[in-house]
Amino acid sequence: MTKTDTGNFATLGQEIMTRIEILALHTEQEGKMTRTYLTAAHRGAARQIAAWMSEAGMDVREDAVGNVIGRYEGTDPCCASLMTGSHFDTVRDGGKYDGPLGILLPIACVGDWNRQGRRFPFPIEVIAFCEEEGVRFNAPLLGSRAIAGSFETAVLENVDDNGVSMREAMISEGLNPAQLGAAAMPEGDIAAYLEVHIEQGPVLLEENLALGVVTAISGSSRFILELQGTAGHAGTVPMASRHDALMAGAEIALYIEKRCNESPGLVGTIGQLNVTNGAGNVIPGHVVMSIDIRADKDSIRKLAVDDIQTEIENICIRRGIRKNLEQTYEAASVACAKWLQQRLKESMQRHGCTPRSLPSGAGHDGIIIAEIAPMAMLFVRCGNGGTSHNPGETMSAEDAAIASQVFADFVEHFSMANPT
Amino acid sequence: MTKTDTGNFATLGQEIMTRIEILALHTEQEGKMTRTYLTAAHRGAARQIAAWMSEAGMDVREDAVGNVIGRYEGTDPCCASLMTGSHFDTVRDGGKYDGPLGILLPIACVGDWNRQGRRFPFPIEVIAFCEEEGVRFNAPLLGSRAIAGSFETAVLENVDDNGVSMREAMISEGLNPAQLGAAAMPEGDIAAYLEVHIEQGPVLLEENLALGVVTAISGSSRFILELQGTAGHAGTVPMASRHDALMAGAEIALYIEKRCNESPGLVGTIGQLNVTNGAGNVIPGHVVMSIDIRADKDSIRKLAVDDIQTEIENICIRRGIRKNLEQTYEAASVACAKWLQQRLKESMQRHGCTPRSLPSGAGHDGIIIAEIAPMAMLFVRCGNGGTSHNPGETMSAEDAAIASQVFADFVEHFSMANPT
Repeated sequence: MTKTDTGNFATLGQEIMTRIEILALHTEQEGKMTRTYLTAAHRGAARQIAAWMSEAGMDVREDAVGNVIGRYEGTDPCCASLMTGSHFDTVRDGGKYDGPLGILLPIACVGDWNRQGRRFPFPIEVIAFCEEEGVRFNAPLLGSRAIAGSFETAVLENVDDNGVSMREAMISEGLNPAQLGAAAMPEGDIAAYLEVHIEQGPVLLEENLALGVVTAISGSSRFILELQGTAGHAGTVPMASRHDALMAGAEIALYIEKRCNESPGLVGTIGQLNVTNGAGNVIPGHVVMSIDIRADKDSIRKLAVDDIQTEIENICIRRGIRKNLEQTYEAASVACAKWLQQRLKESMQRHGCTPRSLPSGAGHDGIIIAEIAPMAMLFVRCGNGGTSHNPGETMSAEDAAIASQVFADFVEHFSMANPT
Repeated sequence: MTKTDTGNFATLGQEIMTRIEILALHTEQEGKMTRTYLTAAHRGAARQIAAWMSEAGMDVREDAVGNVIGRYEGTDPCCASLMTGSHFDTVRDGGKYDGPLGILLPIACVGDWNRQGRRFPFPIEVIAFCEEEGVRFNAPLLGSRAIAGSFETAVLENVDDNGVSMREAMISEGLNPAQLGAAAMPEGDIAAYLEVHIEQGPVLLEENLALGVVTAISGSSRFILELQGTAGHAGTVPMASRHDALMAGAEIALYIEKRCNESPGLVGTIGQLNVTNGAGNVIPGHVVMSIDIRADKDSIRKLAVDDIQTEIENICIRRGIRKNLEQTYEAASVACAKWLQQRLKESMQRHGCTPRSLPSGAGHDGIIIAEIAPMAMLFVRCGNGGTSHNPGETMSAEDAAIASQVFADFVEHFSMANPT
């Protein structure tokens, strides 16, 4: 495999882009990309993916949760598999590339090897995870949890907006919740897991790079902060007598921004801020805001969270504001296997790509699969300013070609020998 | 009138408080104080006020807009009247004292003079303005505008939440919109207008003073500011690449707070701030916020508004945020007549009250009546931290007594001679 093969990968890149468009036709909402777990659109997408897997020469099975798994057998029956894949559910009114790229790219590559009659010692398993976003039943990463044996059966009783439970939806689609345990793959069966995914951020775009190697999937700490000040008439309460909940919130927001600016890889976001019963002529008495802190290194995130908590305390005391800070989520960062990162960088360098490393601020199935196998991720440049979870999500056929080329190189150079 | 009369005013104070409770029974919402223009509750309150006026020895009439006016004749037929009063409509779920105090206090005093057979050269007109808050038809100060001859008939077509127009509501309550012009009082008929009103703020409470003399009703400038940044994934966009509309809004809010802290009498409020489609894991792309700037001196307000506009510009340029700043309201401050302020201070001093002056940050009917007569306001301490427009609004019977004593002293010393 050398740079002279680019022509072939250009064709694969085009095929991937075409199939992403075809898969996007499986949507719940005409004109929008919405495909949530076990809806008709979702089931149709699963059948389409299974058909492409078969066409590429893979043996296809569906497990109890609805993952579609295509296996391209290896030549050595003792070898553990190289697993690759991504999810095919979406957020509501989301993008076409988030997930499907990581399924359709390896299917295209396997199809190409199959046409050439080429096999590797190890089997390649392409997995289309049925559910990652957590939209319909407010529970994410269902597909990878089933594979890792960490599916919590309590979520089977979660209901969607129409009151249908996950259990009912599974049964009505012919899946057997009692068989979920059988979907789990034992540790050792998967030699490595590599996920190709659109970046969903602007880093590669801003640096004019097609690809990036993920160092870790960032850990995150999320909070809901409630601020209780004193409402009052906007005209009659002098500035010095105020206990304005919004001004306290504004000061906290700017502190979080400043603090997160101090460390690369650390980000902090106030995505929601609501003034309860807000009116133009009323001093805000009550504010509720979300706080989301992420970093690829847990120690950096924890130091930031400590500082932010201290500063919230200081600001509230100084302003005479009562507060309630509730942690709603906490997840440690999940590192990508160093040896897989190294192999990816070598593949990139062989094809003229700068081996840029970056953290993934978004969560991915790799968080879960890392429980049972070494895990890595290859990011592909996201167009349109890095927009994702949005109809404006884009990427180019050229980048799909380069990503397939690097992916194929990674597979062709992969071996279980000397993994560290 | 000396301090030894306090006993009698204690009785009046108690009567005022009792009548405020009785008037509060005229409400649209059981258990809440809501009385908007021309509802059954509002009409019932008008009849109750008229009855108390008659009982106090006044001739009572209702004008075309629904103001209830009680006239206590003077001994000199050439004298212009001393007008006093306030409004009897309320905001939704508001307080009992905001408005009614300034109607029921002079009725109690007139009743007392009437029992003593005491008259002054000038007539006293107690006016119960039918509408000040602007709630039902989204148009404030209707009662005083009719008196000042500045009622804009276009608002007759405004409709309430049920689609009923103001014109229809007036006609169905027996008022004649065609006669609105006749409600106007010519300049010269009113020698002076004095309104007693609960402060609706914490200034007197914090300084342990029962009464204050209003210097001016603050002018105000109000804006809606729309900030357009770039939405993005909370995990994937590095801090340095963000154009976060909420962070820009927070910085603007804190600048307004800091700037308004620099001048006494200047206040600035962000009462509303909304993150469009806010979600915990999304960087805010769009924020809409209100800005309300008030000051008793127009020059101070205008300088502040200029500085705030400049700083909004600077912040938005620095952060790469597009903005749209729309002015929604502008009103000049209305000064209280200096000679009336002086008379009020003399009355206060005669009864042991510190002659504290303060601006009114809230609007009042006096803004309008000042178009046709010298205007003054006497503020009465508001309990409960200065809470108003809220069920928690309170004041004490003791303060009602002191306020009646000072009001009565003012009337007894009032003369048209040497008004400057």
